[in-house]
Amino acid sequence: MATAKPGKLRQVLAKKVRLYRQARGLTQEELAHKAKLHRTYLGMIERSERNLSVDNIEKIAKALEVEPHLLLKDERR
Amino acid sequence: MATAKPGKLRQVLAKKVRLYRQARGLTQEELAHKAKLHRTYLGMIERSERNLSVDNIEKIAKALEVEPHLLLKDERR
Repeated sequence: MATAKPGKLRQVLAKKVRLYRQARGLTQEELAHKAKLHRTYLGMIERSERNLSVDNIEKIAKALEVEPHLLLKDERR
Repeated sequence: MATAKPGKLRQVLAKKVRLYRQARGLTQEELAHKAKLHRTYLGMIERSERNLSVDNIEKIAKALEVEPHLLLKDERR
């Protein structure tokens, strides 16, 4: 349930987390702190290396002050 | 990473999975089969008992033929 082949959705999530983080002017370290996650873990999320869970998506969305579903929304469609 | 206190987002997901499944006229068993997940696991998802992962959200969305982010979207907002 952790690493394995990264799905397309993981890549969308990775991109959106980075996008919103940068739009908020936060470093990975600052966002990790706000979301109460480890900085290394957040880095892995942004590289699509982690198959993260709904509860952690919720934490990150809260820290980014964004509706959770937007983190999974592929804007290219 | 499995059970623990169910977050709000898990409850949204649970409701949306059930909603789309019923709209497609699928039983839990049929959806589980299409998504290549265990029927018991799907039942737990619909009861917010599982903190499922991005990869599994992707599988379920594919089986329901719905954009993944809609499964996290709280329509009451």
